[in-house]
Amino acid sequence: MLGVEDRTLEISPDMIKPVQVNENLKLVSMSFLLQSPDLPVIWRGPMKMKVIQQFLGDVDWGELDWLIIDSPPGTGDEPLSVAQLIPATGAIIVTTPQDVSVLDSRKAVVFALKLNLKILGIIENMGGMVCPHCGKRIDLFKVGGGEKAARELNVPFLGRIPIDPQIVISGDEGKPFAVGQPYSEASRAFREIVDKILNDHRH
Amino acid sequence: MLGVEDRTLEISPDMIKPVQVNENLKLVSMSFLLQSPDLPVIWRGPMKMKVIQQFLGDVDWGELDWLIIDSPPGTGDEPLSVAQLIPATGAIIVTTPQDVSVLDSRKAVVFALKLNLKILGIIENMGGMVCPHCGKRIDLFKVGGGEKAARELNVPFLGRIPIDPQIVISGDEGKPFAVGQPYSEASRAFREIVDKILNDHRH
Repeated sequence: MLGVEDRTLEISPDMIKPVQVNENLKLVSMSFLLQSPDLPVIWRGPMKMKVIQQFLGDVDWGELDWLIIDSPPGTGDEPLSVAQLIPATGAIIVTTPQDVSVLDSRKAVVFALKLNLKILGIIENMGGMVCPHCGKRIDLFKVGGGEKAARELNVPFLGRIPIDPQIVISGDEGKPFAVGQPYSEASRAFREIVDKILNDHRH
Repeated sequence: MLGVEDRTLEISPDMIKPVQVNENLKLVSMSFLLQSPDLPVIWRGPMKMKVIQQFLGDVDWGELDWLIIDSPPGTGDEPLSVAQLIPATGAIIVTTPQDVSVLDSRKAVVFALKLNLKILGIIENMGGMVCPHCGKRIDLFKVGGGEKAARELNVPFLGRIPIDPQIVISGDEGKPFAVGQPYSEASRAFREIVDKILNDHRH
């Protein structure tokens, strides 16, 4: 999604150099360590914990404003390892609006609380769309579920990102949507969410 | 999604009785073992493997035509445990059409091959939709990615299920969509996929 799938990590005996995506963004990912994009990572938890530990401890990150860890869905080994390995500022929970997804996001909130992770808030993704042909609103996965969960669980609601087919296309082309289409409703939503997090957690 | 969240498993010293959803469907799920729907399962791999072992070995399943195991996304501990614990007929891989998802489904195919699991095929979910207002086609997550991956990986393509906001609503209400709306395009796609699997794998 960032257009860097051909890049590789430079690994020296004592440091891993992250891939420089642009002036403001460095990245490490398991995918840089695989020989083919088709190869799955068939690892049980302890192996996953080891590589997360390496990515946190052995990567030459330099000075960072923020370290963002994008975890797979759920409350499994990956977020558990992160929470146990570093003193994280907090967790951001992303959900789609329908009940069955909101239920998982409620579990994620309890998960974070149990691990003494501060909850920065809930983001509702895919919250409604506008038909590109007739311009009318379609609430594909319903709307408002993330906001309701945030209220009920007494954690901040960070914002709602609408569905936009261009997000899918931009992602597949490796061009971040918020950069390529800065004036779209979804990009505005992204920016408002980021501003809210930065304002609440300046350091 | 099956409307059985209030039911509980009967657990005797030597057997777990599955929840009878209807005449043709029995179910076990971790959610029946949790005290509250908000509680997450914060387990590392070995604990997960243990509960999967119990669900396979200690549940009084009786005679079954098919045992379907719905795994979380990815190639983690859950499908790995299943593949190592029982001689499965095969794996069905469900993907959405955009490149970043198809990439994950390609990993799942390689995962199944490495574990000597036969691949019954790939299903493309959320493959296009029709605007409920103007009736025009919207390829929200693009279309055709699952079919293309199946062709390239030389595994069967089982079918494409369109997006229908009613699927979301039915799931949230605990009413299986294919039962409640049997004449919709998505239900027809469900049935064709099931028929294809049954025809290819009669036993």
